[in-house]
Amino acid sequence: MVDITQKQSTHRTAVAQAIVKVSSVDTIEAIKKGTVPKGDVFSMSKAAGFLAVKKTADLLPDCHPLPVEYCGIDYTINGLEITIKITVKTFYKTGVEVEAMHGASVVALNMYDMLKPIDKGVEIHLIKLIEKTGGKSDFHNT
Amino acid sequence: MVDITQKQSTHRTAVAQAIVKVSSVDTIEAIKKGTVPKGDVFSMSKAAGFLAVKKTADLLPDCHPLPVEYCGIDYTINGLEITIKITVKTFYKTGVEVEAMHGASVVALNMYDMLKPIDKGVEIHLIKLIEKTGGKSDFHNT
Amino acid sequence: MVDITQKQSTHRTAVAQAIVKVSSVDTIEAIKKGTVPKGDVFSMSKAAGFLAVKKTADLLPDCHPLPVEYCGIDYTINGLEITIKITVKTFYKTGVEVEAMHGASVVALNMYDMLKPIDKGVEIHLIKLIEKTGGKSDFHNT
Amino acid sequence: MVDITQKQSTHRTAVAQAIVKVSSVDTIEAIKKGTVPKGDVFSMSKAAGFLAVKKTADLLPDCHPLPVEYCGIDYTINGLEITIKITVKTFYKTGVEVEAMHGASVVALNMYDMLKPIDKGVEIHLIKLIEKTGGKSDFHNT
Amino acid sequence: MVDITQKQSTHRTAVAQAIVKVSSVDTIEAIKKGTVPKGDVFSMSKAAGFLAVKKTADLLPDCHPLPVEYCGIDYTINGLEITIKITVKTFYKTGVEVEAMHGASVVALNMYDMLKPIDKGVEIHLIKLIEKTGGKSDFHNT
Amino acid sequence: MVDITQKQSTHRTAVAQAIVKVSSVDTIEAIKKGTVPKGDVFSMSKAAGFLAVKKTADLLPDCHPLPVEYCGIDYTINGLEITIKITVKTFYKTGVEVEAMHGASVVALNMYDMLKPIDKGVEIHLIKLIEKTGGKSDFHNT
Repeated sequence: MVDITQKQSTHRTAVAQAIVKVSSVDTIEAIKKGTVPKGDVFSMSKAAGFLAVKKTADLLPDCHPLPVEYCGIDYTINGLEITIKITVKTFYKTGVEVEAMHGASVVALNMYDMLKPIDKGVEIHLIKLIEKTGGKSDFHNT
Repeated sequence: MVDITQKQSTHRTAVAQAIVKVSSVDTIEAIKKGTVPKGDVFSMSKAAGFLAVKKTADLLPDCHPLPVEYCGIDYTINGLEITIKITVKTFYKTGVEVEAMHGASVVALNMYDMLKPIDKGVEIHLIKLIEKTGGKSDFHNT
Repeated sequence: MVDITQKQSTHRTAVAQAIVKVSSVDTIEAIKKGTVPKGDVFSMSKAAGFLAVKKTADLLPDCHPLPVEYCGIDYTINGLEITIKITVKTFYKTGVEVEAMHGASVVALNMYDMLKPIDKGVEIHLIKLIEKTGGKSDFHNT
Repeated sequence: MVDITQKQSTHRTAVAQAIVKVSSVDTIEAIKKGTVPKGDVFSMSKAAGFLAVKKTADLLPDCHPLPVEYCGIDYTINGLEITIKITVKTFYKTGVEVEAMHGASVVALNMYDMLKPIDKGVEIHLIKLIEKTGGKSDFHNT
Repeated sequence: MVDITQKQSTHRTAVAQAIVKVSSVDTIEAIKKGTVPKGDVFSMSKAAGFLAVKKTADLLPDCHPLPVEYCGIDYTINGLEITIKITVKTFYKTGVEVEAMHGASVVALNMYDMLKPIDKGVEIHLIKLIEKTGGKSDFHNT
Repeated sequence: MVDITQKQSTHRTAVAQAIVKVSSVDTIEAIKKGTVPKGDVFSMSKAAGFLAVKKTADLLPDCHPLPVEYCGIDYTINGLEITIKITVKTFYKTGVEVEAMHGASVVALNMYDMLKPIDKGVEIHLIKLIEKTGGKSDFHNT
């Protein structure tokens, strides 16, 4: 594990995304109308994502536990693709990139799990970091 | 999740209570004499409560993880009612009210679970916040 | 811990309830209209409740881990009171009463946590078992 | 949550994959030679993946807890792409597809986390189910 | 992870022990009289041990999750040595040796943690399996 | 739980050790050559140990959650004995002794678990604190 005892706390933000691709317009309609049998896909996946962001250090051995001070999740629908954008913030000695990416992946997986009974062709594409501020260098990748 | 990155850390205390109502004087006697088959109800429930307070952010999606810097649990017996009072303290940007209430509810549930084999009529009443100091406003509700 | 190695698996159901009392009609309206700032209160609390039911044995020392094979959560609004009803099922050697009660308490706590910013007077009342089938005896308490 | 109390246990297998794309041949070499500063990337990610598979129901609200009876992880390197293939088996009433996909995503994330200090361009591509046997229908997607 | 899908469930028992050595008779007296400031050492450590046994598969990558159907903990004081004996039972396809040893180690660690403020010389000796029944071979090591 | 709200954060280090004793030279050889069927024993146990250090407050009731800012694990082979040395660092109000000891015990247990199929005589000896700096007093015990 990287030794961060001597580092200074700074404001850190990370934005990650995941893309969930469904196989039918009906799936998109069911999400929008709230008729997916397992419940409200966006709200329940947001709950799962918030909890997952906070559990990142519990799953990844080298990851430092840190105070997650903000988490926000947005969804954008574009045809059959749903883009999940998740923002995580902290004031600490190390960044929240992996936390954001872990959150994005769990939101995507939860959508897959909730949609499975009505759509067998859901896929998860490209989990990536979009933006990072704070720390040694900023990063933008849109 | 509320964005707390710009807030200042202050000393925070929260006191919550839960009331467990048993259905027989024998149950109270068994607790006092230490003859409940599952073990010492107050000590084991205290252990469960301490762990639960620390796990609050793991269960509630919007709850910020925070450094639990003190937790204390007291029991008062009054007839068939046992009042659990739990105090939680931190020095952080947000309060520990929900942590205290979660701890109170798990202590109560653990008493229910340990007493179930000897008393089928145990009930959990009124989990509430009694006191809160630190943050924007204090709160007292006795 | 009770020794259940020699018991037979049977179908078990438990129904528990918790009552959340808000202090204003505006809170009820905000929940219904989906304008609570933290998000959809019922859907996010359902997600928290499902996860909590599965984590019961992780919080209560004497509780056996068991296969949660169904969980359902309903909400009923009556004036300022919201009644949470949670049903848990398994096919196992021991019952799911404590799992249902733990789920009910976490759903209630999550509603408290999500509503706190718009209503300081939310209280959690009477977490109790309503019904239990399977095992040595059935139980009904409506 | 889907009610599976009346279903029969059958043998179930699921195979999922994730693709990790690094940005330089040096990264691949460091993995092969065991010179990544954080340690042996494949072994440590395997450990993280096994634990993650078992924690799936702890992260996804609608997911049933189930007895993970086998988990295996393979890595294939092809140029700058590392393909993670993870196989999960159980004998239970529901399948292990989501468990396999969750495992694949955590293995990929852990590789990202361990490689970050030596390669800023690591990306995670296409987490998908490759094969599933047992249950109502088999599935093959190579 | 070993593939146990084709194995038969049988009754399994494992007994493990850990030895905690304190540095002064005063420590033993404080435990017996219940005057240790952190609380009742044996009861609270029992609670921690029960929870730890159930969390074994959450900590050890290759360990199969299994239904812990009994756990019991005994303490024997002999001079400055406290022997912790922990028994775990299941009816499953694999044994509970590691669960018992993990439980023993956490009980010992919790005693260390609770006694630290009154005795700086506490040590944990010899965590070992004492007995195992069920599975391919029995084992006795007293 | 000890009240640490008024304490100052200082740099803290703790070093703990555990000794794993195998019963045959073949076991040592299998570890060195990487031919243990369950995988690379040292790397996978390191992953388990890092995660365990971070989970200490989740297992021990009185233990404060704290920011683990460094963790390192070394192995020394001496005949049939493998000495695990684990170092944990933080900048906080309380020390990391119990975290280091918990990490040492889980690394030892994971080695036991991974070696069990090829060596039935593995034992865990003497988990102890070797060194501690920061806080009221330093401690050295080699």
